[in-house]
This record gives sequence, C-alpha cells and structure tokens, in this order.
Amino acid sequence: MRQTELFTKTLREVPKDEVAVNAQLLTRGSFIHKEMAGVYDYLPLGLRVLNKINNIIREEMNAIGGQELFLTSLQDKDLWEKSGRWDDKVVDNWFKTKFKNGTEVGLGFTHEETLAALMKNYISSYRDLPIFVYQIQTKFRNEKRSKSGIMRCREFIMKDLYSFTRTEEELDEFYEKAKKAYMNVFERCGLGNLIYITFASGGTFSKYSHEFQTLSEAGEDTIYIDKKKKLAVNKEVLNDEVLADLGLKRAELEEAKAIEVGNIFKQKTKFSEPLDLTFTDEDGKCKPVIMGAYGIGPGRLMGTVVEVHHDDKGIIWPKSVAPYQIHLVSLCKTDEEKKQADKLYDKLIKQDKEVLYDDREASAGEKFADSDLIGIPLRYVISSKTLEEGSVEIKDRKTGKIKMEKI
Amino acid sequence: MRQTELFTKTLREVPKDEVAVNAQLLTRGSFIHKEMAGVYDYLPLGLRVLNKINNIIREEMNAIGGQELFLTSLQDKDLWEKSGRWDDKVVDNWFKTKFKNGTEVGLGFTHEETLAALMKNYISSYRDLPIFVYQIQTKFRNEKRSKSGIMRCREFIMKDLYSFTRTEEELDEFYEKAKKAYMNVFERCGLGNLIYITFASGGTFSKYSHEFQTLSEAGEDTIYIDKKKKLAVNKEVLNDEVLADLGLKRAELEEAKAIEVGNIFKQKTKFSEPLDLTFTDEDGKCKPVIMGAYGIGPGRLMGTVVEVHHDDKGIIWPKSVAPYQIHLVSLCKTDEEKKQADKLYDKLIKQDKEVLYDDREASAGEKFADSDLIGIPLRYVISSKTLEEGSVEIKDRKTGKIKMEKI
Repeated sequence: MRQTELFTKTLREVPKDEVAVNAQLLTRGSFIHKEMAGVYDYLPLGLRVLNKINNIIREEMNAIGGQELFLTSLQDKDLWEKSGRWDDKVVDNWFKTKFKNGTEVGLGFTHEETLAALMKNYISSYRDLPIFVYQIQTKFRNEKRSKSGIMRCREFIMKDLYSFTRTEEELDEFYEKAKKAYMNVFERCGLGNLIYITFASGGTFSKYSHEFQTLSEAGEDTIYIDKKKKLAVNKEVLNDEVLADLGLKRAELEEAKAIEVGNIFKQKTKFSEPLDLTFTDEDGKCKPVIMGAYGIGPGRLMGTVVEVHHDDKGIIWPKSVAPYQIHLVSLCKTDEEKKQADKLYDKLIKQDKEVLYDDREASAGEKFADSDLIGIPLRYVISSKTLEEGSVEIKDRKTGKIKMEKI
Repeated sequence: MRQTELFTKTLREVPKDEVAVNAQLLTRGSFIHKEMAGVYDYLPLGLRVLNKINNIIREEMNAIGGQELFLTSLQDKDLWEKSGRWDDKVVDNWFKTKFKNGTEVGLGFTHEETLAALMKNYISSYRDLPIFVYQIQTKFRNEKRSKSGIMRCREFIMKDLYSFTRTEEELDEFYEKAKKAYMNVFERCGLGNLIYITFASGGTFSKYSHEFQTLSEAGEDTIYIDKKKKLAVNKEVLNDEVLADLGLKRAELEEAKAIEVGNIFKQKTKFSEPLDLTFTDEDGKCKPVIMGAYGIGPGRLMGTVVEVHHDDKGIIWPKSVAPYQIHLVSLCKTDEEKKQADKLYDKLIKQDKEVLYDDREASAGEKFADSDLIGIPLRYVISSKTLEEGSVEIKDRKTGKIKMEKI
C-alpha cells in the first residue's frame, strides 16, 4: 500500500479524555477512531491488525474442532427470561431497544441462551455430541465507565466459543484443550511470557473459572502470581481455602496488575436446564446437555499488545499481528532515485511481502517519527545514500539493529 | 468437512410463518436460523456462502480503490441531529437505545454522518482527495414487517462504500466505475443476465439514483424493463419526463417483479454541508466535499441467488458462492469400501478441493435428497457399484448430467 493512497494520516492530537496508552497510540497512528466513550471504529491499519488476530484465533479454534457461525446481536427477550438473565437487576449492562410493534429486544452481550435454544434443532441423542461452535461477532455491553481505550468497550468484537458435551468428563477434557489453544493464541500474538492462567470465581455453576491475565500496569485487575508455578489467583477469590486448593502459599505470591484477555467457564447445566436443551443418552435416559463457554476479545487483545509492546516513540508490533511486515520509507529526491524506490516496492510486492510504502513528500524526520509510531517490524530506508551502495537500510523496530542489504 | 462432524442437519420443518422460498430452503438446509422475524443467524454452511460473497465484493471494491474499515453500530445522536436524520419522523426505521447515564444513542442503518465527521481528521486540502472507503458491517433497520426471509431483515450485513471527491465530475467518474464493479459482483455471484440497472428516485440530492434489480417473482419491487437496452425504471419514478430523459418508450417496456440487490446514490453535499466536511481547493477556496454512497446487501444477495437458482428439490448454488465445490456422497457399506471413500476424500482435500463428505450412516435416498437440498455444484457418488469400475460418479447439480471418472 502506498502511503499517498492510504487515506489516514498520523495525528498529533488525541481526544483529551483519552488516558489509556493503547487508545492514545492507536488513535495517533490512525488505527482506530473514537466515536464515543468505549465506542471505537477500526480504520484500515487497525482493521488489518484485528483481522490478523482474528485469523490466529480462527486457526486455533478450528484446530480443536470449533465450527464457525455468526449469530445476531438482536436478542429475543423470551429466551433470556427463561434463564433469568433478562432482568436489569441480574445483568446490569444490557442495551435494550424495541421493535416498531413495541416488542422489547436486547443487544447480545453473550450468546448462551441463543445457542442453547438453537441447538435444540440439532441435539437429540448422545450421538449428536460433542459440539463446539464459535463466532467472531460484535457484543454490546452498557458499561458505566469506559476509560481503558479499546480494552473496555461498550461495543466490541468478541470470539466466543461454546462447548456442548454429554458428560462433565467430556467438558473437562475439552476445557483443557481450550486452555492450550488459548495459550497458543496469546503466544502467537506476542504475549506468551506475560500470560498467567488465573483462578477466578466460577460463579454459581463451578468452583473456579479461569482467566488469561497479561501482566501490565495498565490492567484493571489485581492478581497474585506464583512465578515459579506460572499460576495466579484473582484478588476477588484470594482466600485460605483457595490457596490450599491450589497448593499455593501466600508468602510466595506477588501482587500484580493485569489485563484479562480471555476467560473460560464451565457452565454445566446452568443454561441447558432452563432452556430445556436435553439429549437421550445411551441408557435411554433424558439428560441436560453440559455446556462450557470460552471468550477472547480480539480488540482488547490488540489493545493489550500495544500496552506491553511500545516505547516512547510508538507501537512495536509483533510480526504475527503487524498491519504490514515492511515499512518502506523512501527519502529519494530525484526522479531517477524515485524510480529505484518504486522498483524496490514492486519487487517486494511480487515476493508477496506485505509492504506499506511511504512515498510521500515529507521530511526524513517526519517519516521516521511516523514509522516509529505506526510500529511495523522492519523499516526499509531507501535514499540517495543507500542507492550509492546499491542497498537498502533495514532497521528492526524492536531491537533497533540496522543492516544494509543489496537490492 | 465430514458431515458426521458438521453439527447441523437438514431439517424437515421450517417455521410456519416463513413464506419466502429463500428462507424455507436456507432454513431446511441449515444455512440460517431464524431468531425472530427479520433476524437470522448464519450457521456454518451459510457463513461459508456469505464469506464467499463478501470476498467477491471485497475484491471488486479494492479494484476500484476502496479502502476497508469497520465502523461501529452505536451512533452519536449529535452527528445525526446535524444532518436532520435523528428524528423518527424523518427516518422511521431507527433502533435507539441508551447509555447508563441516559444518553440516547442509535444503531446505525447507514454511515454517512459518521464518515463525514470522521473524515474531518483526514481531509483538509484538495490533495487529500479523492477517498473511497467501504466496510462490510452489520446494519439495523426497524422494519415494520419482515416476511421476505433474509432479503429484508431488521439486522443484516451490508457492504457500504462512500466516495469523497473534489468535484461532481470526479463523483460522476467514480460512480460509473462503481456501476461496473457492481455488475462484476452480480455477474460473479451468478445473477448476471437477470440484473437490470434501474433508474430510481435520487431523493432530495439528485435527479436519479440507480438500483441493481434482479428479475424475480419473489421481488418486492415493480420495475419496467427495456430488454433490448438492458435498462429499467422503478415504478415509483415512471412518468413521461423520465421516459423522455432516458429515451425510452412506454410501449416497449415490460412490467416485472424484481429484487433490489444494490443501489448507488450521488449525495453530493447533502451530508458534507451540515457536518461541515470541507476542503481547501487549489484556488484557495473552502468547498464542501462531494459525496456518494454505494450499497450492497450480501445477505440479500445470498437470498436472491437462492430465489433465482433453485428447483423443487433444493438450492442450486453457482460455483462462485457455493459452500463447498464437491459433495462427496458415500454409499459404501463394507469397511474396505469405506476405506476407499476416505482415501478419495483425503485425495481431494490434498488437491485443495473444497469438499463436504457425507460419511453418515443413512440411506441413499436420504443422502441424495439432502445433497439436492444443500445444492453443492458437483455430487461425487462412491459406492460398491462405482468402485467395481474403480470410479466415482459425478453429477452436475445444475444440468443433471452424469459422468464416471477413474479414481
């Protein structure tokens, strides 16, 4: 992509109320645009990053047998009344609206009820199980406050996977698989060594759920980590019983701030029972389907990557999620030099490289500052100086290392 | 994909209120699932079709310089008050909801206001123009009635492209390009010979807009077509002045029912003026940006394909948008035969073919009926009979032609 054709530009100013580093850098780099508090558009560079994250997630979910579908945001009140989650006193972050005929409808913040109802078409016998489905789809949550940039939004993309199994053992088995798949996702997105699988409240249905927490000062959560065991406990559930359960010692735990990038729950029959999702087992008995839910917020993941991979100049994207792999910055002045730069761009494109080509008329200083802000892993500088040597200068955004390469 | 692993099944029953053929066939084939009237989920097979359509659209939009972004559904009241479109008396199909603090917000049915405001960050000089952006994103429209299946939904995916140009001439030039790109999309989706570019009302901003109408008895629109000139006029604007304008004769026109699958508008300064989206021209003068909007409903397009490509047995997908290219139906009984079928499946997958493999234990009759309903272009039947000849039987879903091929 030629930068002269890309409609966005880096911005000097960000909204004054934007306090989160992720929102500041992503806004200045024109990855995102704020519509309202907690409501962000994805601009072309941001959408490229988001799609890369989504595809990593997709690959890992497909690898554990996930089948992708796409559910609606509009939610049928009747279904949610069955599970007892329609009431604003039970769920305090609903957005609700109305059809023209007055029928109240909700905007989905999750999809257990929808899927439990839908699956009644497809599950009747134990032979139909297990089923694992997921979607990458927009969720709405009416947050009271929203000041963490794209990490806590009122409207956001979520990957939510749901498991439907015959027994709790099958649920446990898949749950462990999902844990590994989640770690693969975070590893591949460049968060590997910062992620702690964290014990958190299991709500009314399980003793624990698990959160995937990323160590970061920008986090809204407080967790207690055991560095050796690579385990953590959310502050909310830290007590003697839990420590004993997990074989952890209070004295060996460190307090840390963290960002939750994923969570997994064993919901068992919490939703299948009220929604009457049952199957006939081998023994001829009618039993409720056992459910689990597994969430990752790709947008929040993107924000987290920025929080942990940046410096005072800008973002430092891991290769796996970078909007482009190469930022070709031309400092060429004469027509002949510019022709050489164009030639190099064409050559890289022919090699199927993902290149953002800064072919703008601007000063070297401005171009370098923009390049550091946007944070593409490799910066290729082509100038009269490098052309004298028949070379391009390659700088690694992360290490700062520079080398020359013949072109 | 092995059909034993695909969680969906064909269904015998569809909701009783489902009158549209597209909804009946797509529901029975488990491409979609109805949540409420005009609110449909996409199940795995349906999502595959939708993604193919979206990718065709994406390629054609990129080819004319479109840059993809992704805007939010939640809409800021202030922006829409500026254009005068917040009022329910002006726009009668808004869905509106509220933040916890009481602030009213809308759910986007289109995005001119949002983009005009956003572009103020990126457009200041004539040098910044033209800009063409598009998204494939969920729209909400509070339709009073919704009985045409996925062709008129309350929540639906839409591809909306917006052009920002310096002059009306530039708008006209891009508008013609977009017309061609649209025809490419419909051609590639298998609607080519049924599409009529149809003159329709230009609203308050232009004499005409153009609709892309597909001839079909299932259509909600009435148009008057000139078969020779491949032009049509929407009934709404059919009058002597229009006929004279277009050089058409009333006597040469035929009345026809049609489905609108796309529409393009020259909005000029209708939104840029109230939202104060201006640029400084070469002559130093401040001028409003000239806008155009270009919409396609991928879900409606999918529904239209079904309306025009089906028979009494089921859907007949064009190759370009089919969920899979080959439906491998195994009638094998013995373990040895089944091994041969598995081997053929593996071989096709290795050849990068998209295959749905019916490896279920079911009767030939049931399998053939399901295969016809799902409508994959080629049916490969492998059975003891075909294996005797070392062959597979290939049947074309559209022509019904059968041939044997060595495996």
